[in-house]
Amino acid sequence: MTNALRLPLSLLFTLSLSLILAACASTPAPIGTGDLGVVIERANGTVAVVNTSTQTVLGDIPGLGDLSHASVVFSRDGAHAYVFGRDGALTKLNILTRQIEARTQQAGNSIGGAISQDGRLVAAQNYEPGGVKVFDAQTLALVADIPAEYDAGKLSRVVGLADLPGHRFIFSLFDADQIWIADLSTPQKPAVQKFKQVGHQPYDALVTPNGRYYIAGLFGEDGLALIDLWAPQPQARRILQGYGRGQQPLPVYKMPHLRGWAVAGRQVWLPAIGRHEVLIVDTDTWQEVGRIPVAGQPVFVMARPDGRQIWVNFAVPDYHRVQVIDTQSRQIVQTLEPGKAVLHMEFTPRGEAVWISSRDANLVSVIDTQTLQTLSTLSLPSPSGIFFTSRAARMGF
Amino acid sequence: MTNALRLPLSLLFTLSLSLILAACASTPAPIGTGDLGVVIERANGTVAVVNTSTQTVLGDIPGLGDLSHASVVFSRDGAHAYVFGRDGALTKLNILTRQIEARTQQAGNSIGGAISQDGRLVAAQNYEPGGVKVFDAQTLALVADIPAEYDAGKLSRVVGLADLPGHRFIFSLFDADQIWIADLSTPQKPAVQKFKQVGHQPYDALVTPNGRYYIAGLFGEDGLALIDLWAPQPQARRILQGYGRGQQPLPVYKMPHLRGWAVAGRQVWLPAIGRHEVLIVDTDTWQEVGRIPVAGQPVFVMARPDGRQIWVNFAVPDYHRVQVIDTQSRQIVQTLEPGKAVLHMEFTPRGEAVWISSRDANLVSVIDTQTLQTLSTLSLPSPSGIFFTSRAARMGF
Repeated sequence: MTNALRLPLSLLFTLSLSLILAACASTPAPIGTGDLGVVIERANGTVAVVNTSTQTVLGDIPGLGDLSHASVVFSRDGAHAYVFGRDGALTKLNILTRQIEARTQQAGNSIGGAISQDGRLVAAQNYEPGGVKVFDAQTLALVADIPAEYDAGKLSRVVGLADLPGHRFIFSLFDADQIWIADLSTPQKPAVQKFKQVGHQPYDALVTPNGRYYIAGLFGEDGLALIDLWAPQPQARRILQGYGRGQQPLPVYKMPHLRGWAVAGRQVWLPAIGRHEVLIVDTDTWQEVGRIPVAGQPVFVMARPDGRQIWVNFAVPDYHRVQVIDTQSRQIVQTLEPGKAVLHMEFTPRGEAVWISSRDANLVSVIDTQTLQTLSTLSLPSPSGIFFTSRAARMGF
Repeated sequence: MTNALRLPLSLLFTLSLSLILAACASTPAPIGTGDLGVVIERANGTVAVVNTSTQTVLGDIPGLGDLSHASVVFSRDGAHAYVFGRDGALTKLNILTRQIEARTQQAGNSIGGAISQDGRLVAAQNYEPGGVKVFDAQTLALVADIPAEYDAGKLSRVVGLADLPGHRFIFSLFDADQIWIADLSTPQKPAVQKFKQVGHQPYDALVTPNGRYYIAGLFGEDGLALIDLWAPQPQARRILQGYGRGQQPLPVYKMPHLRGWAVAGRQVWLPAIGRHEVLIVDTDTWQEVGRIPVAGQPVFVMARPDGRQIWVNFAVPDYHRVQVIDTQSRQIVQTLEPGKAVLHMEFTPRGEAVWISSRDANLVSVIDTQTLQTLSTLSLPSPSGIFFTSRAARMGF
């Protein structure tokens, strides 16, 4: 009996137990996903997983390709992030295991996406080829391909994609002056409703938090397009015609973003494209009720979750600043300089803090929205978009 | 060498490895908490952990004492539920491991609680002894005790507790006709602001989703109390005086609940105490702008997250019904009968479904809010309150 070992039974158990305990110790205790999020490290194809309670980075997930202008939506369970890369790749991440669970090169040039109300469908809006592709959220298998064909063989770039109640998505056709709603109740046979001549060159859009209004900014004319989705027969109409975009066509250094729910009470706060102004629009009359001069061309105009503050960042050359507007007094209460090239801001779920990425300073700042003091800074290479899991519980995000 | 065992080394490793693998296999893959929730099984001191994606019960957590009228708040991470028992016990559950992590018998008779904006403080509102106690959310160590002493030696029962931005809580004193705001920025030394003579017997209250308005229902007079918390000098004032409570004092079979955010657009929808009516109030003028006759004395009047529907359940003897009101037409679009003794309703985070507990039918129904069809039923003994983790991301919940 070579290789034989003579051991007391108790020792054998002790040994085995030690090994098991060691194995168990390496399995971390389960954690919740309510206070997690991701930060895009745009230069190195990596996503950092962050915790908003501890204000720390938990780890990295590399290998995601070109993440310039990348955006993210979350699964219902909060454990999975869908990353839409500029290079047309769609990647499903598990932020708990920090693994890539699925990845598909779904287009040549993509500009973001959305997830259906029930979390079962993920949609990507593409520039090249122009259109929307819809995927099974579980497997990333292609469910539907909706080319944005507006004339024989002509495909438009698609922007302003958002989820609507049911299995519907709404989006704008930049090159076709149209807005489409795709209903995927029967995924193999999407029903598409088209709104034509909505205005020239819709460049981005938002859905109000209640899912009622879709507002598309127009790059090619002086105004915005609006659809009341609760109307018995929804129609597109122009609002804010002649607000100033065409009056004195300024060079536009960066396209503003409309997503971010700049809806505070009954007002919508919007970036005036090209101008150093934020517009205030009443959601009953859809008339302009005010405009606030700001420090540069606004990019993101975002409401704190309670609507009591609006936070604004800016295009080059004013992109080292962030301004905070009090919605009651309509005054700028603070101008912050968190670091060069502020690209994005994200509020914690209940709004006590905001996370701001400063790309060229390689840092993310966590700022108390009440005191406006910096609570923490996180060193991250070229951070851009910041996305927290609480988005999973919201419409139009 | 008794108890000795002669084994080949390879067999020993194989044995150990098997044991380790068995141990690892028993460690489940990590799951997100975004689609989890709990259902109170009021008769047997147990909480069921549920998943809203699969519409299933994941498991039970027993040993929680008297859970009649129990309510729940969630930690920021979504992994912990704080259960406020009617018997005055406060229990911290880990819904992932399904373990009790902390438990304290903090009062003799308790009626619910709240969690601070940053998730660090948990507050309980108590009938006996009347007051509010504040605990460290991590350990449940007592941080502050705020007796609701309104006269020498006289403590009021406390109701309508809600979180406000910062480390503040607001609550009503049923026996003292007062509303208090406790600021726990310095937890050891809470600063209490008192509003007196707000109206007779405030019995429950809500904070609007933006945290701006606090509305307390009055049991002892015909109206409600309102505070605009954004005003430079907040004051309590009466609204809806003479709406009908005093006109024809009906017996009240069950106190209505105001919590549940029946705020839809710019209207608040409220139960008319004692009357078979739901009141519609404009949040600008605070005038009544409509009332809807319903099937019984309303208990919960809850807005679907998008505000397009209001769901209402009723006191005895009409407590087998649920009515759905369309907020645009102000018509009742459906009367459902999900089962006897409907006690609570909870919308999924994005509102595509609602979960309804029918205590005496021992079931929870999951209903599609668009088609109004029943998607699933779950068998649970005497279910009452239903609470989903998405509450963690909301103010006043």
